[in-house]
This record gives sequence, C-alpha cells and structure tokens, in this order.
Amino acid sequence: MESGRQFSSRNNVHINNKEEMPLRWGIVSAAKISHDFVTAFNSFPDRGDAVIAGVAARDKNRAIDFAKIHDIPHVFDTYENMANSSEIDVAYIGALNPQHYDIVCMFLNSGKHVLCEKPLCLNYKQSKSLIKLARSKKLFLMEAVWSRFSPAYIALEKEISNGKLGEIKYVDVEFGVPIAHQDRVSKKELGGSALLDIGIYTIQFAQYIFKDDPIKITACGELNNGGVDEVSTIVLEYSGRRRAVLNINATLRLSNNANVYGTHGRVTVEDPFHFPTKLTYGDGKVDNYLLHPPKFELNFENSTGLVYQALEVEKCIRKGMLESPRMTHKMSLNLANIEDEVRKQIGVHFDADDKDYP
Amino acid sequence: MESGRQFSSRNNVHINNKEEMPLRWGIVSAAKISHDFVTAFNSFPDRGDAVIAGVAARDKNRAIDFAKIHDIPHVFDTYENMANSSEIDVAYIGALNPQHYDIVCMFLNSGKHVLCEKPLCLNYKQSKSLIKLARSKKLFLMEAVWSRFSPAYIALEKEISNGKLGEIKYVDVEFGVPIAHQDRVSKKELGGSALLDIGIYTIQFAQYIFKDDPIKITACGELNNGGVDEVSTIVLEYSGRRRAVLNINATLRLSNNANVYGTHGRVTVEDPFHFPTKLTYGDGKVDNYLLHPPKFELNFENSTGLVYQALEVEKCIRKGMLESPRMTHKMSLNLANIEDEVRKQIGVHFDADDKDYP
Repeated sequence: MESGRQFSSRNNVHINNKEEMPLRWGIVSAAKISHDFVTAFNSFPDRGDAVIAGVAARDKNRAIDFAKIHDIPHVFDTYENMANSSEIDVAYIGALNPQHYDIVCMFLNSGKHVLCEKPLCLNYKQSKSLIKLARSKKLFLMEAVWSRFSPAYIALEKEISNGKLGEIKYVDVEFGVPIAHQDRVSKKELGGSALLDIGIYTIQFAQYIFKDDPIKITACGELNNGGVDEVSTIVLEYSGRRRAVLNINATLRLSNNANVYGTHGRVTVEDPFHFPTKLTYGDGKVDNYLLHPPKFELNFENSTGLVYQALEVEKCIRKGMLESPRMTHKMSLNLANIEDEVRKQIGVHFDADDKDYP
Repeated sequence: MESGRQFSSRNNVHINNKEEMPLRWGIVSAAKISHDFVTAFNSFPDRGDAVIAGVAARDKNRAIDFAKIHDIPHVFDTYENMANSSEIDVAYIGALNPQHYDIVCMFLNSGKHVLCEKPLCLNYKQSKSLIKLARSKKLFLMEAVWSRFSPAYIALEKEISNGKLGEIKYVDVEFGVPIAHQDRVSKKELGGSALLDIGIYTIQFAQYIFKDDPIKITACGELNNGGVDEVSTIVLEYSGRRRAVLNINATLRLSNNANVYGTHGRVTVEDPFHFPTKLTYGDGKVDNYLLHPPKFELNFENSTGLVYQALEVEKCIRKGMLESPRMTHKMSLNLANIEDEVRKQIGVHFDADDKDYP
C-alpha cells in the first residue's frame, strides 16, 4: 500500500494543485443503479480528477462482469474487503435499502467517505445514527438525492429566489411507474415501498422548493398483501398556507411532472420531474437542460444525471466538507422524519422501526 | 289564467305532437349565473319548444333590467309571486346557496318543477328533505350539475364503457381559480365555501367516472378567518383500489384539467375540465366538442354549455320523469354526503348542520 494513495487521510488538507491524487470511487453492488452511476460517470466529457477504482458485489462473478464492462481495475470479494482496502477513498452504495445502514457503518468505520443511494436508511433512527457516526469520524456522508444536483433544479431554485414567480404557495407532484411487481419495491424484507423507492423524490421536491419543515402531514395509501405501500397521497402543509400535494403510484404511469405555483406565476418541471431536462414557465418560457450521451444503455430515465452528484461529492471531499449544502444531513433527517410519519399514517411498519441504533 | 298553460298539471302525459304547449322557464335571481343560463339558452340554435317566460329577483330593478336584456315577458316582484304564477312551469334557481332550500321548497309546494344550481343544498339533511318533497309532489327536481350533460363527458363515458382505457384506477382533478375574495365564496352566511363553489365539480367528476360510493374519504384544507374553506385536498378511495385525488384552490389558478388513468390508457379532460371542449387521449387522439357562440358576453367559462342541462330537464319533464338518469336524486345525495364528510374533516360548519328538516 502506498501511503499517499489513501485519500481519506488527507481530507482536511486543501488540495488544488495538479499533483493531487485522483479521488477513487468504490462501487458497492453491481445493481442496475450502480451500472447507471458508473456509466453516467465514465461518459461525462469533463470528468476531472476522479476514477472508478473498484467494485464489490455479493456475487463475485457479477462484480467481475461489471468490472469488465466498465473497465474497473479492482474487484472485491466482499463489501468488507472493499471497505478495508486502501484502493478506494469514497464508496457509492447501490445496495438494497435494508443493507444501507450496516454497509454505510462499515465503510465509515473503515475511514471511507460515503455516497449512499436514497433512502439513506429505512427510518429516522437509522439515519440519525449514521450521520452521528460520519460526523464523529470526520467523513463525508450524503444521501444520493441526485435530483438536487440537476442543472434544471438549480436553475429553478434561482428563478424562485429572484422572485419572478412571487411567493410559492402550492406544489403538486405526481410520480407513477408500474414497478409494484418488482421485488425491491414489493417485498418488505428488501425494504420495499413505493414511498421509499419513488415517493422520496416527490417529498424531497416539496422540501427543495419550500425549504422548510411541514407543520402538518396528511397521508393515505394502499398496501399490497405484504403490508408494503403501492399507492399513496401525501399532503404537506407548510407555514404561511403553503401546500404540497404528492401522488405516488407504483401501479400506473402517471404524468410525472411537478407544478410549482407562485403568486405571480407557475412553472412545470416536465416528466421526468425527478431529473428533468425541461422547465416550462407559465409565461411561455421553455428552458432545456440537455444531458450528455451515455456510453452504455441505462436502466433508469435520464440517469446520466447521476454524475452531477458525484461531482458534488468530489468537490465537497476535496474541500474537507462533511456534507453538501445542497443535500445536508439535516435535509436527510427531515426527509426520514416525513417518511416515518407517512408510513405511520398509511400503516407500513419495518422491523427496523422497533430497534434502537447508537 | 288559461288552464292549458299550466304545464306541470300535464307531466304524466306523454306529449310529442306539435300542439303541445311550450315549457316555460322562470329564472330565480338575476345573478351572474342566471345571465349565463339565459344567454346560453337563448343563443342555442336548435332550442325547440321551451321559452324563458319570467324572471324574479330580490331587487326588482335588477329583474327589470335582466328581462329587458334577455327579452323576457314576465317580471316578478318576489320569488313567491313567481312560484304562485301560472306563467311558469319550471324554475331555474340561481340564488345563493343558503337560499336554495327555502326557495326550492316554495316552488315545489307551488307545483313547479325545479332545476337548482349546485350545490343543491348546504348539506345532506336539506338535500334529502327537498328530494322527499319533490317526490311526494311528483315534480321534477335536479341539481344543476351541468358538467354531466357536456357532450365531452358523454363521449368520455362511452369511451370508458367500451373498455378501451381498461379498468379505471386513478383520477386526478385540479380546480383552482382566485375567487377567495368574492363574498359568495368567502362568507359563511352566504354559504361560502370553495368546496361547495368549485370543489363540487371535482367530486362529481370522480363520482361520474367511478359510478360508486367511496369507501374512504380523506380530506385536509385551509380555512379563512371566518371558518370558510379556501383550499382543500380530497382523496376518495373506492373499492378495487380505485382512487381519486381532488385539489381545490380558491386562491390560485391551477391547471384545471382532470386526468383519468385506466389499466390500458389515459385521457386528459382539458381545462376547463368542468365543462371541457377537448379530450386528449394517451394514444394521441384529440377530440374537440365545440360550443355554440353566445349572444352576450358570459360571466363563466364555457357556460354556453348550461343549455344542455336545460334540454335534459325539458326532455325529462315531457316524459313525466321526476329525475334525470344522468344526475339522479341519489347522485345528489351521494355528493352531499361526501361534501358533509369533507367539511367535517376540514372543520367547516354551517348553522344548517345543527337543524332538522322534514
């Protein structure tokens, strides 16, 4: 092991010269989302100084195949071996929801920075515990709410803050895709939940727009036979009579756009609102935000956009920051809080809800 | 009084010859909606055998002006005088919500058929009492849910019943117009309520599509300082995991379309969904349903469509029917029931809720 290769030991040092070491990503799981993440990353024309250094999967053959496709130098037998390796600096966690807590703990305890797919955890308690750990270790941790790093979202935020739409009073979001039959969505033991799979995008959107905590949450939904939510409607009421209505549906494809209504105007974040390439304003203005072409076919819509959160993570780590200002620990905790309350109201319970976390 | 002029005495007789007497409408109140109703009626190219025979308003000068504009032969000092007149057969009630119950009672007790603006009454108890009275008097009574008689709605109903959209599982409707400052909407003593003014259109739409009673109602809303609702979200859950999400907003103009999602396709009922002229299907089909041009400027959007319910009322009365199959008494009671439950959940209470009705 070359001592200089271990980036995480240098994360309080401001580095901006050309001799700096590349930041080395380790990919946890060879799942669909990991394929898209790496494809988006490697296809990005202006990647800068970071590399995909390793991949680990529960099935080593899948990891080997994944490494071949994406030209990744290191393959790890187990997640633990990757966590203990000096070949990676930051882990991207693409494993299933119920594994997030343990895997992230393991990587943090091994001194690695972490970008973890959403939902960060199954509930608030787990999320709070992870964040506490990351802070105590002085390591970067972020929930992979990639929407927040979409150029369209950033432009929308500017448009709102410049006051052109007036005060934002109402947001409606629809996210419906027929994925209720997929194991990861339908099985409770896999952390299944339309709310945690797609609903989280609608909640984070409302939170992104209103930049506040709701004062009232009203939710109702439909569960499958295993007690996992397939459909739900959530109303988040914020102070000042601001309101978000969120519709989540894992049985039907809905319009999948988000509308933001201000006292002076409105804007539609066009389908797919969770990583849009088009904003249509009420005054007729249309703004397009094109994505770079991917080298390989992708599993999820517009997921070349996954690269933007990777760039953010790299920037934050190089600056010695422990969280991103666009998706802070507090934001993740607020999201988890809302998800817990919605689950409570619609009657979805995880074993993890009965446990305590350090 | 010529005895043959009193149409209501003949309503059990099947009449279809050319010697039949014209059906004579009496307009109760010279309000905006009455102006639109009469304009729509008189502008319709193929009116057939019915006339606007009289108008009554609380302010006689308004009635005189109204009669002049619309060329109406009889002006009545009071609603009571019109109810007792032999010059009208059927009354159109365009008065304010809290007056509906007493006025409709009066006209029914005087032997007149009635078309009453929506909401039929302030609550279920009043509605039930009126319907009981109409039936006992063998007179026609209908709540003026004019949407139901829109050619676009009728076409949509056929499209659904022919199965092309599959099973309808989800409906979303938005109705938002900035009318919260208007007295009729904001003042409780005037029966004000965004729910009863515009929300009723969203509820009746869900009921029209699902043709069933909801098994669960979830509602939350925002009230003004006088305890009148301005904004609300209603989720109606029907058996078989069918769901309607309704958004009502008297402070903002929303998209004002309705989306109907079936297992095999979707359709958008374009703005204004409550009397649309355009249906857009998911497969790209677009159907237009043009309205006749009005002779005078109208107060409400697409309200030349008000004539279709008048044609229905006339047809039913001539057939001796006491209710229309497209907007039955049962449907009005179901609507009132849902409105009562929503008001209860969002905390809107009328004095009429504490009273009993015969």
